[in-house]
Amino acid sequence: MYDLVIVGAGSGGYEGALYAHRRGMQVALVELGPESVGGNCLNRGCIPSKYMRHGAYLIEKFQRLEDYGVKLGSYELSMSKLRQGRDKVVVSIRENFKRFAEHLKIPIFYGRGVLKDPNRVVVEPSGLELRTKYVLLATGSSTTSLGGLVPDGRHIYDTDQIWSLEDFPSKVLIVGGGAVGVEFAYMFRMYGSQVVLVELKDRLLPSEDIPEDSSRYLARKLKRLGVDIRLRTTIKEWKPYNGGLLVTLSDGAQVEADIILLGVGRRPNTQNLGLEELGVEKDERGFVKVNAFSQTSVPNVYACGDITSPLMLAHKAMYEAKVAISHMLGEEDMRRDDRLVPKIIYSAYEIASVGLTEEQAEEEGYETRVGVVSFVSNPKAMDDGESEGFVRIVVDREGSLLGCHILGPHAGELLHQVVHLMRANLKVDFLSKSMYAHPSLSEAIGQAGMELHFGSITWTKRR
Amino acid sequence: MYDLVIVGAGSGGYEGALYAHRRGMQVALVELGPESVGGNCLNRGCIPSKYMRHGAYLIEKFQRLEDYGVKLGSYELSMSKLRQGRDKVVVSIRENFKRFAEHLKIPIFYGRGVLKDPNRVVVEPSGLELRTKYVLLATGSSTTSLGGLVPDGRHIYDTDQIWSLEDFPSKVLIVGGGAVGVEFAYMFRMYGSQVVLVELKDRLLPSEDIPEDSSRYLARKLKRLGVDIRLRTTIKEWKPYNGGLLVTLSDGAQVEADIILLGVGRRPNTQNLGLEELGVEKDERGFVKVNAFSQTSVPNVYACGDITSPLMLAHKAMYEAKVAISHMLGEEDMRRDDRLVPKIIYSAYEIASVGLTEEQAEEEGYETRVGVVSFVSNPKAMDDGESEGFVRIVVDREGSLLGCHILGPHAGELLHQVVHLMRANLKVDFLSKSMYAHPSLSEAIGQAGMELHFGSITWTKRR
Repeated sequence: MYDLVIVGAGSGGYEGALYAHRRGMQVALVELGPESVGGNCLNRGCIPSKYMRHGAYLIEKFQRLEDYGVKLGSYELSMSKLRQGRDKVVVSIRENFKRFAEHLKIPIFYGRGVLKDPNRVVVEPSGLELRTKYVLLATGSSTTSLGGLVPDGRHIYDTDQIWSLEDFPSKVLIVGGGAVGVEFAYMFRMYGSQVVLVELKDRLLPSEDIPEDSSRYLARKLKRLGVDIRLRTTIKEWKPYNGGLLVTLSDGAQVEADIILLGVGRRPNTQNLGLEELGVEKDERGFVKVNAFSQTSVPNVYACGDITSPLMLAHKAMYEAKVAISHMLGEEDMRRDDRLVPKIIYSAYEIASVGLTEEQAEEEGYETRVGVVSFVSNPKAMDDGESEGFVRIVVDREGSLLGCHILGPHAGELLHQVVHLMRANLKVDFLSKSMYAHPSLSEAIGQAGMELHFGSITWTKRR
Repeated sequence: MYDLVIVGAGSGGYEGALYAHRRGMQVALVELGPESVGGNCLNRGCIPSKYMRHGAYLIEKFQRLEDYGVKLGSYELSMSKLRQGRDKVVVSIRENFKRFAEHLKIPIFYGRGVLKDPNRVVVEPSGLELRTKYVLLATGSSTTSLGGLVPDGRHIYDTDQIWSLEDFPSKVLIVGGGAVGVEFAYMFRMYGSQVVLVELKDRLLPSEDIPEDSSRYLARKLKRLGVDIRLRTTIKEWKPYNGGLLVTLSDGAQVEADIILLGVGRRPNTQNLGLEELGVEKDERGFVKVNAFSQTSVPNVYACGDITSPLMLAHKAMYEAKVAISHMLGEEDMRRDDRLVPKIIYSAYEIASVGLTEEQAEEEGYETRVGVVSFVSNPKAMDDGESEGFVRIVVDREGSLLGCHILGPHAGELLHQVVHLMRANLKVDFLSKSMYAHPSLSEAIGQAGMELHFGSITWTKRR
């Protein structure tokens, strides 16, 4: 009898297992196979993409190196070396986790975990039965196809298949200007591909979480780097051509491409888990319904991560796993809270956000004020040759922090300061009076706070 | 009649002027000349050094580029290009500030500001008299020589003169393994110089603020990069030799060097300001005595930054200027607090600290616990190829945050999270339950918090 069986050893599952162990629970993991431990994020998502993105970022850095007294000659690119380096990181994280689980005596059972009743998980096909007090579902999500665009791993790739490329394509057509699309557009472009990025809506990152400013900055820079952005456009048809594809877009334009990459939606893995039989409720889109403590409609069954909402982020899954486990232990101080989830995009800029945009806040009835400080005059950003971007803080009339949006160097790390303060219900007054190292990028956060708390003295035009 | 006259337009002075203006005061600045606006930090300190350090960091990055599928050919170095880039940043910050001050109608009077009485600053040599309600002294510090080592700008340089070098020296001897010494050792080494680093004490960064771990990590890496570190050693004598110098060390060893760089102490600029005549008290080392509100023994005269203590950091000056001005406005919520001052060193690693080390805390009678998490298994650090280092958090028995010491990528920005939480008196409990993006370097902070709050499950050896 386990205290907890976790179905799925992706980000939510493995973080949950470690946390449950820390908290003294007997915990077991069920995962499809040894190669999928770590889930989508580790094996085909954020980890390999951030690796390649770091390479892309350094290649971009080359272009400014003469300012630092370094004149580079030519350089050669090698996909096989890139893959080696990338796989080394992925495999080492995966194997370390397995060894660590073994060390902590957390068993990982390989197979499909199916709920037979609220206290019984069966591992298919072996039929091994695990009895448990609690269950945490952490089965993640899968790529989906888009209309007639069916990934074949030869000409049309989804984000699972793209990692098997053996060479840099000379021409890539990317479908979808969301987070995934703009990340790959940047990476392929810096590694030398010609890139066409097709987006149905009228801007990149067309999510209401992302301020328009971020979309505009990003589009401008991607264009400057040579990415061909086609907004309000979709793919109409395509045919084999010259060893690649000839693609006709909705506006009639024709584009040649070696490959098409689908940077589009994902669906939750909530089928064949026995949920229906057990009465675990799902919504009309197939997401498992959970309360603030990640608890499903069956009280001892919890769920976290991609199967619970379209906000499919590894750390959301990790956090929700901890929320669920704390609740199993009778605690109620941790709760799911999408508003505190940091969202970070790694494209030609780092684009980080938490909480509400101005527009969202106004829609919710807040009287908002916004403090914006550009990195253009931030001494550390200038020293690093990366002074494009901004910190944007949204507060209500009382100065409560409603949201923060940072575009620029190390935005993702910087954002955490504001995440902490939002969670602590500290106001912009506090932020404006903290101490910031000089020179540091963080100073821009303090200055945005000063603009809000004491009134603006900025003269820099916003763009 | 001004509300406030600030003597010195360095970091403390100009931040203070902007803040006073924000708060509605009529403020004027007095500064020696147009070229020294911005003070030591901007013109000869942190700003030019962080610029060169960024170049050094990128040169180091080259060595790992093959892992990212990028094979570099050879590269050429040019001091004149480096200087151009560096001076462009420095001059642009300086000129922007002057234009900004003009735009805000904050006058800058050039000359030496001398206090004639508590409400009168005279600008020498013009004799212009400025009447004012309050005075803020922000005159900074100057380099000092070391025994017989008198900087001549030809063979022996101080940190003011070093920026005038027209070529990279092929052999540099650096005296002092403190912050300045280890920063220049890294920079010169990456730009191709042979570097000998001489330190009197038995470790690099021999400050009690810095945990020994940080010194050890840094020494190991500097050695790996080829820096020749000589501890428990000083310079005994030197003589001209072969166009350069032949230096004899205290252990009898002989070292050839083109130049010697003195990375040693500074003294406060507290002379010839009229302080003695006015009765502004100084301590035996020449620092102006101030209370928690940066107020001197003459109630309407305040002082900030390098003239107030040996902790000579630009942001400490900036913060203290704001503390002083708030106090002039009748507020008491901001106070000088050395314990909350982030200290960041940019050498072969970024080394950041705030608050107490374990040893310091125990000396003060705390029962301490320490949470250490290595970057070695941090996925973002692995992706970025920079997984050396650690986050080290010190708490007392109740979990109150006493200090934090981070060595590794972007340590300086990461540290700010902990600075905020220490200032808010939030405990490690809070830190351990915050949400951290995955993958991010910040996760290591949360994990250090978990180690402390829930007990350790780390199996990675500390070194």
